[in-house]
Amino acid sequence: MNTKIKWLRDKINGLNMQGMIVSNPINVRYLTGIDAEGILLITRKENFYITDSRYIEEVNKILTIDDGIVVYNISNLCREDYENFFLFCENVGFEEKYVTYYMYKEHKQKYQINNFEETENLLEKQRMLKDEDEIEKIKTACKITDECFEYLKGYIKTGKTEKQIAIEIEKFFVENGADGLAFDTIVASGKNSSKPHAKPSDRIIQSGDILTIDMGCKYKGYCSDMTRTIFVGYVPENMKNVYDLVLKNQIQVLEELKEGSNIRSISKNVEYSLKLNGYTLLHSLGHGVGLEVHEIPYINPKHDYNLRENMVIAIEPGVYIPDSFGVRIEDTVLITKNGCEILTKSDKNYVIVDKEV
Amino acid sequence: MNTKIKWLRDKINGLNMQGMIVSNPINVRYLTGIDAEGILLITRKENFYITDSRYIEEVNKILTIDDGIVVYNISNLCREDYENFFLFCENVGFEEKYVTYYMYKEHKQKYQINNFEETENLLEKQRMLKDEDEIEKIKTACKITDECFEYLKGYIKTGKTEKQIAIEIEKFFVENGADGLAFDTIVASGKNSSKPHAKPSDRIIQSGDILTIDMGCKYKGYCSDMTRTIFVGYVPENMKNVYDLVLKNQIQVLEELKEGSNIRSISKNVEYSLKLNGYTLLHSLGHGVGLEVHEIPYINPKHDYNLRENMVIAIEPGVYIPDSFGVRIEDTVLITKNGCEILTKSDKNYVIVDKEV
Repeated sequence: MNTKIKWLRDKINGLNMQGMIVSNPINVRYLTGIDAEGILLITRKENFYITDSRYIEEVNKILTIDDGIVVYNISNLCREDYENFFLFCENVGFEEKYVTYYMYKEHKQKYQINNFEETENLLEKQRMLKDEDEIEKIKTACKITDECFEYLKGYIKTGKTEKQIAIEIEKFFVENGADGLAFDTIVASGKNSSKPHAKPSDRIIQSGDILTIDMGCKYKGYCSDMTRTIFVGYVPENMKNVYDLVLKNQIQVLEELKEGSNIRSISKNVEYSLKLNGYTLLHSLGHGVGLEVHEIPYINPKHDYNLRENMVIAIEPGVYIPDSFGVRIEDTVLITKNGCEILTKSDKNYVIVDKEV
Repeated sequence: MNTKIKWLRDKINGLNMQGMIVSNPINVRYLTGIDAEGILLITRKENFYITDSRYIEEVNKILTIDDGIVVYNISNLCREDYENFFLFCENVGFEEKYVTYYMYKEHKQKYQINNFEETENLLEKQRMLKDEDEIEKIKTACKITDECFEYLKGYIKTGKTEKQIAIEIEKFFVENGADGLAFDTIVASGKNSSKPHAKPSDRIIQSGDILTIDMGCKYKGYCSDMTRTIFVGYVPENMKNVYDLVLKNQIQVLEELKEGSNIRSISKNVEYSLKLNGYTLLHSLGHGVGLEVHEIPYINPKHDYNLRENMVIAIEPGVYIPDSFGVRIEDTVLITKNGCEILTKSDKNYVIVDKEV
């Protein structure tokens, strides 16, 4: 059995569960490397992965004997098979934040489970702490992202549309070793930048535009996340104060981060600083990054929680002035014993593309 | 109030519900046009949309007075507000196939709901029947997809990788009026085509390759879905029989489709025909297409259900020979009174790219 599954078995035993149904495909991938549609059953003695004909060939190629997982084709299973999986199991865990109410009822009935127990982000919590291999993958994803930003400095010109830039980013990622996008790229120019979650539009980039680019790729399943706000032609005077305020806050947070930093107090500091200047932080200050681009820990004042070594998080303060413009600056960082290692290293001073001469 | 929300209110009244929580963002978009993160509450007298600061600006731009929806910022709501929404409502509906078990418990508690009722795909069932406006959008998405296929015939050459072709497809979509991809494009060449859900890889296209391209775009939220299996250089003799068998079945199904066609019997016919030739249909024969690329009705023998006018579905028989190759051919079609209108019109005869001379 692989080490991650062994860890899970020990963990659920300690919680007095005799089995667990892992439905969230991200958690299945974390435990097994499988990237497919299916369900992982941790039973008293064995581990099973149930999938369908579309994935059988691929799954069997990925798994080794060492994984200790028996693969079943869903169409070969009958009612009795399901009932036998958790026979003599008193308590079986499930992912209550992933499983729908409908699936919950169906599972209970199909597997004849007496006590179906909530597992409270058991796997997500473990996933917060990255091992060496995971960190290397995230570093590679961040490196490709930095290279992409460097490329964009030359590529972005007046006349291009937001959509064209977004697709160029994806093309760069794919052609430079990434699996693909970690999330839908945001390219928001001019007024569009005032919406934190703007979708790339057909708006044409003009000189004097501010341009927020929020992008990230996946490398072997692991994500990067970086935002830069840049300028086209020149830096408009009225935007400098806001840019400087966001950047100062972002740098200050990164300087303070280390094992033990308290999420609530970091977030409150930034909120307070923005408030002093008349602005509100419209979204969380940050979030964990790993197999998902947004995962726990969420960095906002709602969470009174301390960071730990080997967490990877993104820090992304932003200011958004409705109908005018917005600025967001974001890096992915690795928390260490005494500080943090900034994994996305692109320039954060005023970056001006297609400069007016 | 807009007609779709009026329909929903009548419908739930008929089911003896006094309110409904609509959580699935696709259903929210269907009812309101809103494309954001938030929750729609249909209460006794009013409709509310609760979202967060990131989306407020956009949502207020989309909604008109005619929609009759009051927008709330989630951070301005207190415990009592939640309790008041469904005051004096005996039965409140929810989407049990979307809401997680965790959300279910949280909603019950937060809104103080006594009877939280399953709504059994109420909205998804209505979404199956497309109105004129929806059909026009799907037709446009299909037209862009056909144009893309035409472009690919010239673009695909030996030496390109699967990933390069996939990104070129997305680029074409975005530059030709689509919102973006309807789903992750499949470009599976050579042996990779034997996996129905292969992901584009770095494999380089060679002469003699078979190439399955499963692609679709979104236009104003509505999807297209089309698969073509094509040949590079020439058509290998050993692949012709399989190609012909899949094509014959696909065409036969399209000829038979009309209002009243039974999903089970259509699917069984194809399964039987493939079986006679020693093959198994590894996936459903098809599925509904609309705001989601895969929606009900699912076309497989598990469903004893008749098609209705104005449904839009994709029909995609396929044969997959492990470790060798696969063929899938798929069109998006509109069900009419007496037949079906094929909305994706790309060539289905042997298409040979980068032809050897």
